[in-house]
Amino acid sequence: MVGQVTTHLGIDIGGMSLKAHLIDRTGKIYRSATVPTVADWSNSEFLNGITEILKQFSDESYTSVGVGTPGPVDFEKGFILRSANLKNLDNCPVVPHIQSLTSVPVYFNNDANCASLGEYYFGAGKGSEDLIVLTLGTGLGVGWVHKGKLYNGHLGNGMEAGHQTIVLNGALCGCGSRGCAEAYFSTRGLLGRYREKTGKDLTNAKDFFDLVRSKDVPAVETLEFATEVLAHLLKNLVHSINPDRIVLVGGLTNSSDLYLDRLKHILKENAFPVLWEHLRLEVSSVGAGILGAAALGFKEEV
Amino acid sequence: MVGQVTTHLGIDIGGMSLKAHLIDRTGKIYRSATVPTVADWSNSEFLNGITEILKQFSDESYTSVGVGTPGPVDFEKGFILRSANLKNLDNCPVVPHIQSLTSVPVYFNNDANCASLGEYYFGAGKGSEDLIVLTLGTGLGVGWVHKGKLYNGHLGNGMEAGHQTIVLNGALCGCGSRGCAEAYFSTRGLLGRYREKTGKDLTNAKDFFDLVRSKDVPAVETLEFATEVLAHLLKNLVHSINPDRIVLVGGLTNSSDLYLDRLKHILKENAFPVLWEHLRLEVSSVGAGILGAAALGFKEEV
Repeated sequence: MVGQVTTHLGIDIGGMSLKAHLIDRTGKIYRSATVPTVADWSNSEFLNGITEILKQFSDESYTSVGVGTPGPVDFEKGFILRSANLKNLDNCPVVPHIQSLTSVPVYFNNDANCASLGEYYFGAGKGSEDLIVLTLGTGLGVGWVHKGKLYNGHLGNGMEAGHQTIVLNGALCGCGSRGCAEAYFSTRGLLGRYREKTGKDLTNAKDFFDLVRSKDVPAVETLEFATEVLAHLLKNLVHSINPDRIVLVGGLTNSSDLYLDRLKHILKENAFPVLWEHLRLEVSSVGAGILGAAALGFKEEV
Repeated sequence: MVGQVTTHLGIDIGGMSLKAHLIDRTGKIYRSATVPTVADWSNSEFLNGITEILKQFSDESYTSVGVGTPGPVDFEKGFILRSANLKNLDNCPVVPHIQSLTSVPVYFNNDANCASLGEYYFGAGKGSEDLIVLTLGTGLGVGWVHKGKLYNGHLGNGMEAGHQTIVLNGALCGCGSRGCAEAYFSTRGLLGRYREKTGKDLTNAKDFFDLVRSKDVPAVETLEFATEVLAHLLKNLVHSINPDRIVLVGGLTNSSDLYLDRLKHILKENAFPVLWEHLRLEVSSVGAGILGAAALGFKEEV
């Protein structure tokens, strides 16, 4: 038991596991739990997993539950519409399920939004008035914290900006459209574009970046083009949102020494000076998705 | 004299003239005035023109002045940084100048934002919670009215989304970058791309659309590609902002019968269904820029 401190439970729905942290407003973690996920889980098996992770906090008196999940959700109903990693989920009522197990308020949002909120409260986004966070991982997620609040848009699917078209009629994206930023600067995108050039299947981003470090020409070219695409996504976001800070997070930032300088250079060459001259562009190593999920409940406090 | 009705003065800075309307909250126009502009006006000549148009309302007791202007502005200082139509303007202190002539609050914003506010209050944007307005004219402007308020972003240059990259390394845009939406779907863009195909200089958009109607192949192809670009700009905005309504305004909408159906079709093929299924996409014939400039002052009312 934590005692008198007000705490919030955050749950992150990942491709490999459900993870949870019990935290206070400062981000201090009091307890953590993990439940492995199975790729072909049905709705009910998935909800059983949620029940199981909640049980591990049954003797705690948290004041809210926040859930972060990949890919499109219905905010009004609290449903996961579908998931790239848990392919059998279909209109899964995750919030109603949790609400049936607890009397405290339950919040949820997509994982990029949770990562953004985590950076805002505990990471490289502290103090930003208009913070944009890009999660560079398997896919490319984008979240926006506007004056301390997540921007969710009409019906709550505000930021799917990884699926901005940058290369008209370009590479096929997982979403079915062509030329999206995610089809280039994400693990799926980098490996897919590398496969097109070489016919070779790589299994993860580390292998790809190792090839770049060894000056493998197709890998270097793939990263160079993807960096150009990412820079123009940043340009588009800067020209639409005019943020004061952009933070890059996610697994692909472990290799940011290979592309960050060039990314900044292309952005500055292409965006209006008035829009980037006050902009800070940073890489964060925090990885604050679970903390951000818990922080979804902060708004209930005075 | 209008009498007891609360009125607002709106001034639009155009390439050909300064125009002003005195309106009330319903959009009723009580008096209008026009002062022709001269393309090579200096800062001081331009400010004299502003003085002249204000004089025509000297016997009215308006409660605010709103100014709409093309191009990048400094909101904090109230300066026009530069203007494509009045090329000699340079850091022009338009708001301080007006404020020296009147004791009422003075507001200003770019013309696309004013057009957006005009549509929100008086046009096809009425009742929208997240309204995006595209001004399709000489250039391509975008404004966003979020829950009844213009989104201005950090330092107030929130929406320059006509300069989103859609065609990476595509046609050179007036802004110096390549592949911006404006380099395709604007009068400048359509005529420029047509010139590249044919070597022919057209002088205005009407001549271009007349060629499309006469099935001139390069003109048809130019419009088809530009429509594809515009559809993907809409996709990008939909995937970033998730609006409930998009309204197209401006001179190029006079020929929307030539592209509107195809525009909608491409958008629906490429955007997430959850993002467009509740979206209304409309063309407005109102042309509410001056009204919107006046409406900048509405926020002062209870």
